Amino acid sequence: MNGAESLVYTLIACGIDTVFANPGTSEMHFVAALDRIPGIDCVLCLDETVASGAADAFWRVSGRPAATLLHCGPGLANALANLHNARRGRSGIVNIVGDQATYHRPLDAPLTADTEGWARPISGFVRTATSAATVGRDAADAVAAAKTGTIATLILPADTAWTEGGVAGAPRIVPARPVPDVSTIASVADVLRSGAPTMLLLGGRTLNDATLRLATAIAVAMDAKLLAEMFNARMERGRGRPPIERIPYQIDAAIESLVGIKHLILVEAKPPVGFFAYPGKPGQLWPEDCTVQTLAAIDQNGSVALAALAEALGAGAVEIAVTPPPAAATGAIGAEAVAASLASLLPENAIVVDEGISFGRGFSRFTHGAAPHVWMQVPGGAIGGGLPLAVGAAVAAAGSGRRVVAIQADGSAMYSIAALWTAARRKLDLTIIIIANHKYEILLQEFAGVGATPGRTALNMLDLGNPNLDFVKLAEGMGVMAAQASSMVALNELLANSFDRSGPFLIELLTI
Amino acid sequence: MNGAESLVYTLIACGIDTVFANPGTSEMHFVAALDRIPGIDCVLCLDETVASGAADAFWRVSGRPAATLLHCGPGLANALANLHNARRGRSGIVNIVGDQATYHRPLDAPLTADTEGWARPISGFVRTATSAATVGRDAADAVAAAKTGTIATLILPADTAWTEGGVAGAPRIVPARPVPDVSTIASVADVLRSGAPTMLLLGGRTLNDATLRLATAIAVAMDAKLLAEMFNARMERGRGRPPIERIPYQIDAAIESLVGIKHLILVEAKPPVGFFAYPGKPGQLWPEDCTVQTLAAIDQNGSVALAALAEALGAGAVEIAVTPPPAAATGAIGAEAVAASLASLLPENAIVVDEGISFGRGFSRFTHGAAPHVWMQVPGGAIGGGLPLAVGAAVAAAGSGRRVVAIQADGSAMYSIAALWTAARRKLDLTIIIIANHKYEILLQEFAGVGATPGRTALNMLDLGNPNLDFVKLAEGMGVMAAQASSMVALNELLANSFDRSGPFLIELLTI
Repeated sequence: MNGAESLVYTLIACGIDTVFANPGTSEMHFVAALDRIPGIDCVLCLDETVASGAADAFWRVSGRPAATLLHCGPGLANALANLHNARRGRSGIVNIVGDQATYHRPLDAPLTADTEGWARPISGFVRTATSAATVGRDAADAVAAAKTGTIATLILPADTAWTEGGVAGAPRIVPARPVPDVSTIASVADVLRSGAPTMLLLGGRTLNDATLRLATAIAVAMDAKLLAEMFNARMERGRGRPPIERIPYQIDAAIESLVGIKHLILVEAKPPVGFFAYPGKPGQLWPEDCTVQTLAAIDQNGSVALAALAEALGAGAVEIAVTPPPAAATGAIGAEAVAASLASLLPENAIVVDEGISFGRGFSRFTHGAAPHVWMQVPGGAIGGGLPLAVGAAVAAAGSGRRVVAIQADGSAMYSIAALWTAARRKLDLTIIIIANHKYEILLQEFAGVGATPGRTALNMLDLGNPNLDFVKLAEGMGVMAAQASSMVALNELLANSFDRSGPFLIELLTI
Repeated sequence: MNGAESLVYTLIACGIDTVFANPGTSEMHFVAALDRIPGIDCVLCLDETVASGAADAFWRVSGRPAATLLHCGPGLANALANLHNARRGRSGIVNIVGDQATYHRPLDAPLTADTEGWARPISGFVRTATSAATVGRDAADAVAAAKTGTIATLILPADTAWTEGGVAGAPRIVPARPVPDVSTIASVADVLRSGAPTMLLLGGRTLNDATLRLATAIAVAMDAKLLAEMFNARMERGRGRPPIERIPYQIDAAIESLVGIKHLILVEAKPPVGFFAYPGKPGQLWPEDCTVQTLAAIDQNGSVALAALAEALGAGAVEIAVTPPPAAATGAIGAEAVAASLASLLPENAIVVDEGISFGRGFSRFTHGAAPHVWMQVPGGAIGGGLPLAVGAAVAAAGSGRRVVAIQADGSAMYSIAALWTAARRKLDLTIIIIANHKYEILLQEFAGVGATPGRTALNMLDLGNPNLDFVKLAEGMGVMAAQASSMVALNELLANSFDRSGPFLIELLTI
């Protein structure tokens, strides 16, 4: 058994069954081992940003890490933006990154790069394998780390893959997430009993139906405010589920959402701050006279903590009002109309991937009446997360009958458009709505915030027209069926049709 | 004047007139300053890998650095692969990378990333601006560094851009590249006079017509072998110019090219090593009993050194035989046929960008008879360099009447396909030949080298069919006219037509 084979056996033993791959020469012995040893589904992605974003979504949907197979150095670099998003969303991923053979690296061949240095900022675990004999052990450690919700990067010099003497690693026991101690629960209960204006801020894995019911029960019983973080990896939402809103993105609205709060209780959430700084505006969103207290840190189990808190407070289950589904919109194209149509037509148990940027920003409050679904955002704000996430979500959901719906801004789609090809090859049940406004609308809004009217140079950098992108042709160029919609009626029909058939479909929604 | 304005004034004063831009919110004050202050041409790229690759080619064509405008953190990450290529090609680039405001960074907002950490491995100069008052000085230092042929990364926290008190920096004096001392020249002359088998290995900026004539004169006079490095940023070639060959990529051929050599003389070249390591094969390409001597280090002026060497050896000018242009090929599609047609039809002074990977590997020896042209490769081996380089070369050559011709493998095209949109918007004089074999042919060759027959899993990762990419639709989706060619006659006609008209044109050449 060579090192590469021991790596494959270890991955399988540790429960890895999916690899999002974009291999190169330095990974060829690993490819050969994956070929020889059955048990891992290898999903080819046409660039690394698709692979890393897909692995992120695989975790969010399945709760299990997938692996990526990345080419050495610059290959990893191409994956970093979506790994940044995955890190912010606390997803578990095992990156297998090829590298120069250990004895070849000092020769500084052209592709030699600082693979470890690039990996470190986005990884909770980084290790470069040193021999075939220890690759199996390294891989078992990497998978164990990934299962805790972190990115584990295992760098695989070519000779550690091809040399004989590999030993498969045994799965590690992964400890459960720690639970806050009793005194923390008691202290937060005291705050809530004080009657001072208090907000529960939820993030991480707490945004599921069961935990949201607990949090809602506490909020109702103690008259507290309840919000989710600004961007979240995974929210369970829809008809019959507790309708939780998020901290708004826009800085003034974000500050407004915390006005008057005296106690902020964090549950797997970070202290809320502005997405960017703006001249003359505060960076931290909570008021000066507000205390910030942690019920569950981001690596702790907030769901268990909320259950204990509800019990301490005697907060019983509350009835969740069922928001009726809106009718599909038939008037002018607009954000509220698109949200209404989506809410009306969304299939049960759908997975919505939201990189709608400015157009999609208000979708949340108009979609509480949709059939129960999961909503995924781009937690790190790195542009281009949407389509790779959609591909990974659809791979994880394949065979379950669940539909993935991507709400995708046009500008950000172009950072990872090659994702469409993988959707076509895998015949993924994926509907993509491209919001085609032919500009970086969010940046035009930000430019207005600078206090100037954009001149020709600025417009050249913020406008996407001249020529307009044709997403139908782009999709067809990668084997994905597609159509344009220039009315809500057309959008509704295309959406409904796509939900009734299998395979991917792209709708280019002309919003101007 | 705010910091951003001082930055723009400084860039202009230091000779920067082109910015390849993909801005975000944290760069909006810089965008506003570029808008207000005329003098810089801002070229919008749809992702950062296009911006960095284009800036690399701008240097290679113009000899002057361009700037990039990159979004904070993950924006820079997306640019790293092509910055890796630029570093290996020793191109000068000024990266302006936005960042969180200095006081906002400690709050760890979602987009906060280790921008400096990611920049360091590819930069010869990295600095994070600390105040509006010093940004101008920082920018002048960055441009001076870039002019020496390195990547200078200036990180611009948002508040250093928007705060008043900017001071424009003055251009620095950039020292000329150092020249090897007399004793080095004498020592190399002695080696050449010894009569032992000697090879001159040229790289860097020595691959221009005048310097190649000197090197050829020395090689002829002293009966030495002459080769260029495996991958080169810029070679002047074609009819009437010295026809220099390169060290082959394939490991056995690479080793073979140096067999019997007793003295290897490096001229702006690095000691030659295998692109990758292979089991049982040496990493360094020169024979065990061969000495390696440096005539000019990679940061020295090898052209001056060769002139001094030629004088010391009394090597007078030699007549360069004029290779006649081949006729355009009309038979079966194949690498030699495509090279012949290209050589036959290439317009005078064209710039060829070669990311032909396996198919294009043999083009060199069949194109010496083409009209004089410049040939650019991807020196760092990071995949996806070709189309961004083609865009940057065409921007640098705009208005000169020079045509850019990109020889582009299909697999690698997909890493940076969004480059086509910038070609369309800027109406660049660019002909792209996509070599559509619908597979990662180079990896299939490497897989065969592992000694196995690929099974279904391996083929899934190495084959690009199912579905085939349709590059005509992809091009048209981004506003670039395109057509398929399934015969050499069709290719010839499309090539000739594209050379006769202005604007970009893409040819999808079906090689299977």
